[in-house]
Amino acid sequence: MTAITPRIFKGMRDFLPEEMIPREEIIEKLKTIFQKYGFQPIETPSIEFLEILTGKYGEDEKLIYKLAYKGGNELALRYDLTVPLSRVVAMNPEISKPFKRYQIQPVWRADKPQLNQGRFREFYQCDADTVGSNSIFADAEFIIITDEILNELGFKEYSIRINNRKILKGIIEFLGINPKLEGSFLRSLDKLDKIGLDGVNDELSKKGFSNDVIDKINDILEISTEGDSRNVIDLLNEKFESVSSFKEGLDEIKILFDYLEMTDIEKNNYNFDLYLARGLEYYTGIIYESVVDSLPHLGSLTGGGRYNKLIGTFAGRDIPATGTTIGLDRIFTAMKQLNILPEKKTRTQVLICNFGNEFIKNSLSSASLLRKEGFNTEIYFEEDKINKQFSYANKNGIPIVIIEGSDEIKEGKISIKNMIDRTQISIHKEQLADKVREIIENEKK
Amino acid sequence: MTAITPRIFKGMRDFLPEEMIPREEIIEKLKTIFQKYGFQPIETPSIEFLEILTGKYGEDEKLIYKLAYKGGNELALRYDLTVPLSRVVAMNPEISKPFKRYQIQPVWRADKPQLNQGRFREFYQCDADTVGSNSIFADAEFIIITDEILNELGFKEYSIRINNRKILKGIIEFLGINPKLEGSFLRSLDKLDKIGLDGVNDELSKKGFSNDVIDKINDILEISTEGDSRNVIDLLNEKFESVSSFKEGLDEIKILFDYLEMTDIEKNNYNFDLYLARGLEYYTGIIYESVVDSLPHLGSLTGGGRYNKLIGTFAGRDIPATGTTIGLDRIFTAMKQLNILPEKKTRTQVLICNFGNEFIKNSLSSASLLRKEGFNTEIYFEEDKINKQFSYANKNGIPIVIIEGSDEIKEGKISIKNMIDRTQISIHKEQLADKVREIIENEKK
Repeated sequence: MTAITPRIFKGMRDFLPEEMIPREEIIEKLKTIFQKYGFQPIETPSIEFLEILTGKYGEDEKLIYKLAYKGGNELALRYDLTVPLSRVVAMNPEISKPFKRYQIQPVWRADKPQLNQGRFREFYQCDADTVGSNSIFADAEFIIITDEILNELGFKEYSIRINNRKILKGIIEFLGINPKLEGSFLRSLDKLDKIGLDGVNDELSKKGFSNDVIDKINDILEISTEGDSRNVIDLLNEKFESVSSFKEGLDEIKILFDYLEMTDIEKNNYNFDLYLARGLEYYTGIIYESVVDSLPHLGSLTGGGRYNKLIGTFAGRDIPATGTTIGLDRIFTAMKQLNILPEKKTRTQVLICNFGNEFIKNSLSSASLLRKEGFNTEIYFEEDKINKQFSYANKNGIPIVIIEGSDEIKEGKISIKNMIDRTQISIHKEQLADKVREIIENEKK
Repeated sequence: MTAITPRIFKGMRDFLPEEMIPREEIIEKLKTIFQKYGFQPIETPSIEFLEILTGKYGEDEKLIYKLAYKGGNELALRYDLTVPLSRVVAMNPEISKPFKRYQIQPVWRADKPQLNQGRFREFYQCDADTVGSNSIFADAEFIIITDEILNELGFKEYSIRINNRKILKGIIEFLGINPKLEGSFLRSLDKLDKIGLDGVNDELSKKGFSNDVIDKINDILEISTEGDSRNVIDLLNEKFESVSSFKEGLDEIKILFDYLEMTDIEKNNYNFDLYLARGLEYYTGIIYESVVDSLPHLGSLTGGGRYNKLIGTFAGRDIPATGTTIGLDRIFTAMKQLNILPEKKTRTQVLICNFGNEFIKNSLSSASLLRKEGFNTEIYFEEDKINKQFSYANKNGIPIVIIEGSDEIKEGKISIKNMIDRTQISIHKEQLADKVREIIENEKK
């Protein structure tokens, strides 16, 4: 038999049950939290017109997978969920605002995959966005949600870094930097926590920024190390009162911190970070990202910000928006490295042994009884040796095995084997659901 | 402002919350049922090597979306979930068998979309399959699951049609039909319930089948109208005992019906259908599909069967498998037409009015309290006129509005407006969660 060699394109992944089950549990938690804050689900198609994706703030065309359709220049796979959301909002002006939506779908990047760093060519994005509100409260909500998500997933030591693009714009203005070099300058600044102040100075100098600029930026960065966020905000306020864009950004940050301080979020969990830049060009206001303190090499697990101009590129008029992406793959990798990932190979709770067709009617009725009570129950398909059936339960991590053969049926009884503590009991059939519930509840403890 | 015209490729769909919420509820029910029978989730990548998809039993290349990558002949979007499952099983020989998996993901077909008939270029497939078991019990389970799904979704009058490819092979053999014409012959047979016996005869005659063949097939089809499935099976058994493939197929059907009769499935819900063929080439044994009696124009809502050869084309050795596809879009369309689709525009249960930043701390604490109790709670972002805030709740179908302004705070009270019956009550804050629960539970009734 000549077979077609089964293989998979690099950067693509199969998720078998032992990975799918924890992934689904994480996604379920994200959905529950998004919904608790009033976000509704939407989905958009995988295939979009290329010109939508490469628009004014779009992605570099090289990173987009195009379809071999009409010369390969018309259709492509979405590379994020923010641009499709913007298109949807522009196409459906009847949507009532503020529109709070979440969206959990795969995206594709024609990039070199780095499998051990959690970078793939296909990966899920979990986005939540609020469209149509200028309120800083809408921005604050994403910090609150980010905190609740990281907390709920079991992360202990993490930081949500917060800044404002308007502040960065103010710094650029104050330093008199050529707007064309803005991106390059901010990228160096963004590395402060990775390469330190000396590293940043070195890089800026190599890039050709003047000593004057470097001295001034050092003064500013100096301030950002002076005590807690509130203190830094106050010191900067004094110093930059005259730079209008800076002032406006800082005022927004102050309001944001007011909101956050009214909640019960731990103050240690978030901070104002003057050098946080975030890569994407479309941000216009408050920006934020979260990192796990002990896993800085992973980069940010979540990140987002306000983008008041992007939707306008499709709608023809500006519609304010703000939102965050939760990086499912990074979160998964982080949880694995911290050993807080729930481990489960199966959701099946009960295996009913098969003793041949003459007993299968009993098995079917026990299975039906258990399923009605909500227990995930599998009947073994073949009349195999009992050892083989037990080993199937073992291999798959099924915690309970039911034995209902000729002896048991004669006595009107059922044997239940607890595969965790290896005990076995014999009960009457009417006790079945209660006993199974008891074992499963004990197991949870 | 020159905008990029927001548009969407024909056959692609955006799902806004009012469609997403019922879709998610249907998917949730499917998942719950699959899991109740011991199926575990997997996912596979959207992008596969083209040669995997077009292999021996693969899809017509014209129907596959290829990527503009290496000349457009290497990578493509999956068009179903069965071929990827087969590849996964072949690539991962360590997977313990029987492997019972479900998979709910979109697939793509480069076909002419027929939007009003529920045919799109991107659509979800919900598949469940059992790999590695030859047991007819594994086949029976999919009929049981199909019945439970249709029941659970609220369908009343439906038929699960059951046949066996081996029987069809036996008929072909018995009639002496050239194997090359098998597909064409079976496709005509498959139309019996749509165009009637005369229609089938006409079509067979036009296709050039001899009168002898047509007479003989009429004899056989005649039998299939004689009483209930058991009766038809017995009559056919007598008549075709000598045709070995026919006999083998019929024996399997008998065992299958034995199993089904041991369950509490209504006998009216399933029947043996001698002329059911199912299009796909890879089926080798029992096949089945379900139709809603009052909506025959929609075609089958679910369908599947045994395919013992497909995995072998990747694994190099045969591995038996059987499974079904649940057609989410057809089910959605059918439920809409029968008026049994749950209607819900939002999952948000409570809107807390915004009376400005001086009261927002109280709003945040009420929201936090309600969210902890599991209620989806939104705080209005802006200090708008109260009428505008109420109209936002109305438009979005949020059933409860909370008013906690200066008067209420002074008195230590909260006002709750029930948006369904338009009543309003004033309560103490500690009663908040209980009152909200009461309103929501009353609403469900």
